[in-house]
Amino acid sequence: MIRLYNALVMPMDDGNCRHFAGEVWTDGSRLAYVGPERAAQGGFEREIDLGGSLIIPGFKNAHTHSAMTFLRSYADDLPLQSWLSEKVFPLEARLNPERVYAFTRLAVLEYLSSGITASFDMYFHREAYARANIEMGFRSVICGALSEGDSVNTAADDYEKFNSLHPLIGYRLGLHGEYTAGSSLPRELSELAHSLRAPFWTHNSETESEVAGCIERHGMTPTEYFESLGLFDYGGGGYHCVWLSGRDMDIFARRGLTAVTCPASNAKLASGIAPLCEMSRRGVRLAVGTDGPASNNALDMFRELYLACVLQKLRERDAAACPAEDMLYAACSGGARAMGLDECDCLAEGKQADLAVIDLNRPNMRPIHAPARNLVYSGSKENVRLTMVAGRILYENGAFPNADAERIYAEAERHTKELIENGA
Amino acid sequence: MIRLYNALVMPMDDGNCRHFAGEVWTDGSRLAYVGPERAAQGGFEREIDLGGSLIIPGFKNAHTHSAMTFLRSYADDLPLQSWLSEKVFPLEARLNPERVYAFTRLAVLEYLSSGITASFDMYFHREAYARANIEMGFRSVICGALSEGDSVNTAADDYEKFNSLHPLIGYRLGLHGEYTAGSSLPRELSELAHSLRAPFWTHNSETESEVAGCIERHGMTPTEYFESLGLFDYGGGGYHCVWLSGRDMDIFARRGLTAVTCPASNAKLASGIAPLCEMSRRGVRLAVGTDGPASNNALDMFRELYLACVLQKLRERDAAACPAEDMLYAACSGGARAMGLDECDCLAEGKQADLAVIDLNRPNMRPIHAPARNLVYSGSKENVRLTMVAGRILYENGAFPNADAERIYAEAERHTKELIENGA
Repeated sequence: MIRLYNALVMPMDDGNCRHFAGEVWTDGSRLAYVGPERAAQGGFEREIDLGGSLIIPGFKNAHTHSAMTFLRSYADDLPLQSWLSEKVFPLEARLNPERVYAFTRLAVLEYLSSGITASFDMYFHREAYARANIEMGFRSVICGALSEGDSVNTAADDYEKFNSLHPLIGYRLGLHGEYTAGSSLPRELSELAHSLRAPFWTHNSETESEVAGCIERHGMTPTEYFESLGLFDYGGGGYHCVWLSGRDMDIFARRGLTAVTCPASNAKLASGIAPLCEMSRRGVRLAVGTDGPASNNALDMFRELYLACVLQKLRERDAAACPAEDMLYAACSGGARAMGLDECDCLAEGKQADLAVIDLNRPNMRPIHAPARNLVYSGSKENVRLTMVAGRILYENGAFPNADAERIYAEAERHTKELIENGA
Repeated sequence: MIRLYNALVMPMDDGNCRHFAGEVWTDGSRLAYVGPERAAQGGFEREIDLGGSLIIPGFKNAHTHSAMTFLRSYADDLPLQSWLSEKVFPLEARLNPERVYAFTRLAVLEYLSSGITASFDMYFHREAYARANIEMGFRSVICGALSEGDSVNTAADDYEKFNSLHPLIGYRLGLHGEYTAGSSLPRELSELAHSLRAPFWTHNSETESEVAGCIERHGMTPTEYFESLGLFDYGGGGYHCVWLSGRDMDIFARRGLTAVTCPASNAKLASGIAPLCEMSRRGVRLAVGTDGPASNNALDMFRELYLACVLQKLRERDAAACPAEDMLYAACSGGARAMGLDECDCLAEGKQADLAVIDLNRPNMRPIHAPARNLVYSGSKENVRLTMVAGRILYENGAFPNADAERIYAEAERHTKELIENGA
């Protein structure tokens, strides 16, 4: 049992970002108490005086490709197509499980340093990926990434395997995207989704040309196409959603789908600004992701939150657009619900002890007029004092008590060197 | 003398962001050695093994209103005009020297935590402001902020007083902006600028309506208007520059003026995205500022650099637009030259020892393919290991050896409370 006291607590248990002065107790992987100050009964393995810091449900990184850390700043400032075809694809073809394991471990360190407690990941070599997360105590939901040529049986096998592998790991059905799926695979996956009554996820409408290509191929947008195949009959959502039409948004709202926005990646690759305000007006659920480190390049939810809010203000030409609290809620509770992590969506007794402690005792957070807005508009990774997943402290005061960070850096550098410089 | 060794050094002494493995020595306020590894001769008061960290010339925050820390997150997510008239102006009217002193000290802590070694500040109660900076060992150039009703003699007096006050303090002539200047003051200030042969600075073309109003009043843009009065005859520049016309940019280029971009503030207040790429194509010099904490809200150059680059990619619809190295150079050397800090523009023997040490041994910086791009696209305040101004270490490993941070927080909170809650 761990006691975190003398804190501000933002539980997000009733749909908003209110906070109160109080404390949080864990018991194993779960929360045993969330409430006002309370006389401790003893029996805690640690009691941590947070000195007024803010406890939030951990950030959920609802779209990423963790193992792409090896490509960080390898090829910035290039046009999108040459970046993908000349730089990214040739290297990815030479990945193997050992490399994905090493690069994933590096990403997990970075998530923890940003207060992220779970990721929704789409990439290759999923067993090595899952192993890296489990060993580090990190929570992740894997999304299938089927492309033309893959067998739908892979998804059926993975669904069963990863959903029963470990409490920290989950799996969702997914296609890489409409433009890489070919013609038969989406139908086959829809049949599987129906037999499993399972939600469906994919990259959706990230670029304008992706949508134009889909309209050319199918006479409809990616969202309309997937909807016509019944792929959304059991929910799910889409990653990016920069170029959704009004009709697409209405499909998202009617089906209860979540649009996962990745503002940094969409800006850096010049894909555009997602219409988040319009989505909210139409009742679409939102979550926030970093996308992979090749295109972002940081795995930092503070950056995403700030960008999401201010890009909406630019898009709407209205400084009042996209209030900070809405995006903060989407980044914590919204992401959890999108990923099926119903036990990680808020701080309440019995829920999983997945949380981050935000240090308000730093110059960028003073004075404290409104903690939620301070966090979104002034916060940075310097403010992450502690990150806990399933009741275990995985990051505290800049250190990783459960991981050998120096070794992880060295292994990631070694594999990167072999892959890029030696072309092995 | 301090020795910083086992480092990567990015001197910016020849117009680019190349780096080499080496070390840096200080002697008093100046740099005594910048070069490859060298046998130390003893006599250092400290020798710091940087373990491969990156030394850069400190960031220059080339536009800010430091003492506005008290308004941070007091009134986010409001339309611009109601924000200014209902929230900002009534409180500013109740500022006094003691309060500006307290709020400035808080801002200086935040600058240091972001690797910023100098600020170009425009605000009230300048003597208290200068005292806060001098006491904390921080460097600042004050910009005059004359508005209609002020006497030009104030600027003449301040010019003499602050330019001879202390080695850490400078002063530049400035108007708050065309739209607050009235009709006679700009002419009077131009006469003063000519008699002093001094550069001129002002808020310039921050919003579309500011430019429209100027055209209505004078039949020309703010830049054309100031140029017509001879205010730019000895150089200077403008803050924000979001809505410069092509002709405005040509005036900037011809006069060697610097456009100080404030991307976070311009985004958060929905003012727009400055045409930085177009300015560069036309030969306009660039620097980077945070603007004040009421509108940003953080005083964080990592955020500004990332935003500046990715917003240009969105504006130009080109992922290759605005390479990271260009903005990094503008944020360090460009800012120094704009502010007249010719001794702080690069790392070279005899220059002022103003520098920041960027920790590359963190997950967000690995692997290291390109330090400059790692810094801009992945860097955050967690990577600031050390900040030095005039040879003194003012920030190291999260602590402020030269300041009582807890007391500064408490004083800032107390004054904020008195000002806002008690309406005193």
